Amino acid sequence: MPKKVDHQQRRAEIADTTWRLIAERGIDATTMRAITDALGMANGALKHYFPDKNALVKTAFVRVFDNTNTRIQQRLAGLTGLAALRVFCQEVMPAEDVTELEARVVLPFWQRALADAQLEEVWAEAMAQWRQQLRRILAEGREEGTIRTPVADDALVEQLLAMLNGAQVLAVLGPDETTRETQQAMIESYLDNLGR
Amino acid sequence: MPKKVDHQQRRAEIADTTWRLIAERGIDATTMRAITDALGMANGALKHYFPDKNALVKTAFVRVFDNTNTRIQQRLAGLTGLAALRVFCQEVMPAEDVTELEARVVLPFWQRALADAQLEEVWAEAMAQWRQQLRRILAEGREEGTIRTPVADDALVEQLLAMLNGAQVLAVLGPDETTRETQQAMIESYLDNLGR
Repeated sequence: MPKKVDHQQRRAEIADTTWRLIAERGIDATTMRAITDALGMANGALKHYFPDKNALVKTAFVRVFDNTNTRIQQRLAGLTGLAALRVFCQEVMPAEDVTELEARVVLPFWQRALADAQLEEVWAEAMAQWRQQLRRILAEGREEGTIRTPVADDALVEQLLAMLNGAQVLAVLGPDETTRETQQAMIESYLDNLGR
Repeated sequence: MPKKVDHQQRRAEIADTTWRLIAERGIDATTMRAITDALGMANGALKHYFPDKNALVKTAFVRVFDNTNTRIQQRLAGLTGLAALRVFCQEVMPAEDVTELEARVVLPFWQRALADAQLEEVWAEAMAQWRQQLRRILAEGREEGTIRTPVADDALVEQLLAMLNGAQVLAVLGPDETTRETQQAMIESYLDNLGR
């Protein structure tokens, strides 16, 4: 038992270190060596966790996705419909330090998923989970009357996912134009419209 | 004079071949060798055009961006406001063969722009151009009465850019969920809302 716990804890430490290194230094500078140095591990030991660079990128993305979802869950307590949707958007949009760092992991993940079926599958599952969650929140909002737009929920889900993913690019590659305030105005005005 | 024309024509051929190779085979498979093979050029001759891989990615992105804008301009003749906005979205959204191929160049470009100031600058200029164009189209739409939403134009510009960039990711990495029909429904319902 203790051995299993150690192993899981080690995995978590590695995942934390990996996503942070990618976010702060970029994917190219995040070598196996950089990770083992940061963790104080023997160089060869990491091969067991990451047979190649895509395994490393996968671990980093999964960690970022899990962290985002944990924050969403924590803040969702007692919230439904439009208020829940606002929390969801705020925790994904790169308008804070942590979400901006997370976006810097997502961009290289996408590029690698283009040429790696396993990463593409991880992405598909992540988006399937968000689609389901967004549909549930929208249905709640319809029932309680906070969401009243005539636009169909399926189209709203797609608009939200596209906007939130696109904001990752705009904010990270153009922070002077897509400021945090601009992102807030973008999403708040969109959410306001849902209540009309 | 003929020499200059030849040179420009050569540049155009190289740009066309490069973006297509990246779109069809991926960024990693688009080596200098793959490009010279496709063009029937001597291997060393390409170094003059592309000192490194980022130069190649820049050329491919600029070509894709120019091609997109050329199609938009061609289709905009006589159109204003909401109708013009629809054309703009249709030519950017990856809901056709050509725009889907273009998205496959944009994703690796973003990833490299994260760590390359020159590519980031190219992206900033591209987005500045689109912001300006979108603002002009929205102002026209307000004047002619086809755009009547109470949401401010600056927020609309940001929503549109985020949604169109995000659609690149969703469509390329999840074509079974984000089908072409789904993209059309996403954008049409958004545009309908602007007229309300």
